Amino acid sequence: MALDLNANCLPTARTVADLRDQVKVWRADGLRIALVPTMGALHIGHMSLIEEAKKHADKVIVSIFVNPTQFAPHEDFDAYPRTEKTDSELVKDHGGHLIYAPSGTEMYPDGFSTSINITGITNGLCGDSRPHFFGGVAIVVSKLLLQALPDVAIFGEKDYQQLQVIKRMVADLNIPVEVVGAPLVRDEDGLATSSRNKYLTAQDRQQGLALHKALANVATLVKNGKTAADALKASEAILNDAEITSWDYFEVRDASDLTLVDGPVTRPARAFIATQVGKARLIDNWPIDPA
Amino acid sequence: MALDLNANCLPTARTVADLRDQVKVWRADGLRIALVPTMGALHIGHMSLIEEAKKHADKVIVSIFVNPTQFAPHEDFDAYPRTEKTDSELVKDHGGHLIYAPSGTEMYPDGFSTSINITGITNGLCGDSRPHFFGGVAIVVSKLLLQALPDVAIFGEKDYQQLQVIKRMVADLNIPVEVVGAPLVRDEDGLATSSRNKYLTAQDRQQGLALHKALANVATLVKNGKTAADALKASEAILNDAEITSWDYFEVRDASDLTLVDGPVTRPARAFIATQVGKARLIDNWPIDPA
Repeated sequence: MALDLNANCLPTARTVADLRDQVKVWRADGLRIALVPTMGALHIGHMSLIEEAKKHADKVIVSIFVNPTQFAPHEDFDAYPRTEKTDSELVKDHGGHLIYAPSGTEMYPDGFSTSINITGITNGLCGDSRPHFFGGVAIVVSKLLLQALPDVAIFGEKDYQQLQVIKRMVADLNIPVEVVGAPLVRDEDGLATSSRNKYLTAQDRQQGLALHKALANVATLVKNGKTAADALKASEAILNDAEITSWDYFEVRDASDLTLVDGPVTRPARAFIATQVGKARLIDNWPIDPA
Repeated sequence: MALDLNANCLPTARTVADLRDQVKVWRADGLRIALVPTMGALHIGHMSLIEEAKKHADKVIVSIFVNPTQFAPHEDFDAYPRTEKTDSELVKDHGGHLIYAPSGTEMYPDGFSTSINITGITNGLCGDSRPHFFGGVAIVVSKLLLQALPDVAIFGEKDYQQLQVIKRMVADLNIPVEVVGAPLVRDEDGLATSSRNKYLTAQDRQQGLALHKALANVATLVKNGKTAADALKASEAILNDAEITSWDYFEVRDASDLTLVDGPVTRPARAFIATQVGKARLIDNWPIDPA
């Protein structure tokens, strides 16, 4: 097997063949394997995914691939941060075992012609504001899962809709992998960790703190008996105070099937927000217990 | 494992769990496994697929599932022949080891939301006349492959475009299965074997023989130096003599990428035909060597 080696970095597989060679060796030893798919630019949120992975498996593979098919032409594919060396060091420090960093042509060679579509759960939220997004996520995640064939794959609840879409696809296609969601991680100031936070100025960041405050307020108001619609309406003031006056969405949805909730919240739900702050599109979500 | 058992029939798995249990036992013994996906109504064409499968594997699973998603509403889903008992006996007689016959709800439970699309190679031929077809084939084949995870899967060259579409999809999604094509099988009179031949009257059958005669004539004329277009034009007389005056397609295409060939044939090609004969839509194809 040809693996990149570097004193401070982990072994790195760059082809499907090398990845499968390593997995085969681990399988022969009877080891359980976890995959943590990422686009790199790793931060403490990703480290929590690795910690979760270690609970489920003996060996942890972290894939790093900035997937072009989930970006629209006007989005930040070219600008997306690429920091593979420090990523690899971080994964090593947190007990991961292998980096899988394929090239674009390894993932999408000439003649590539297949797409995957998931209906229903992709309506609304990021599915509306980023129509390319879930098709791109579906194809790359199905490929990564079938390339590695891990026992378990870990995805963060930060991308809550994405997690539900992946669970749906994996069940529908009978991909023999357990999909596990890991809780959203926040920085000390409460901002949801994100690779795109690197785009934020100090002032942007202050503004961004209004997102989780507004979401938490929705949850509190619902708990105190307000309808979802009333709780959202009342919480807009927190956004407006931070000079956030428009957003892609600021909604309450059912926690499992993601249908929109306007009235009284009678089942576990979740508040969601997405908005542009400075140069970054930020998303966040918050659990809501029924009133 | 709960498997149906019957003196003259093979063990039959009806759920993904039962299928995987049996595969796991074989895997633990280090055995190679082949899957032959079918819609049942088995005939000597399918038996040739089983023979091919035995060359590649120790254990042969034959799946029987009349897949609703590859039929359009006006097509023959309800009328499609279902003969599971005799199918099972035939597979047993020809050395297969397991029938996998899932129910419709096992394959497509409530909430199923995923579709797969392959572009390019699905244009033309059956992709034009049966727009539902390849999407339906893609989803059911990907599911069957991922349910069983065999080493090899066998598909007949009778459905030549389908075979190429499946090869494309398996490569694109990195499904870890080798796809093998098996040569088309003909009855003694030359008619391509097909489950739909059961729909034919004796008179229909005589008419149907014009299909392979016309295709063979195209191959001969090309070999003698005619262009594809001229060879097709000249061969229409064979169809017309059998009172076949219209067809879904009667074409020459590149043997690997299925692009249309009109002029001189300089690379391996294939002649294709599809037409309604009596109550059956018949398809056939024939290899063409370059002039």
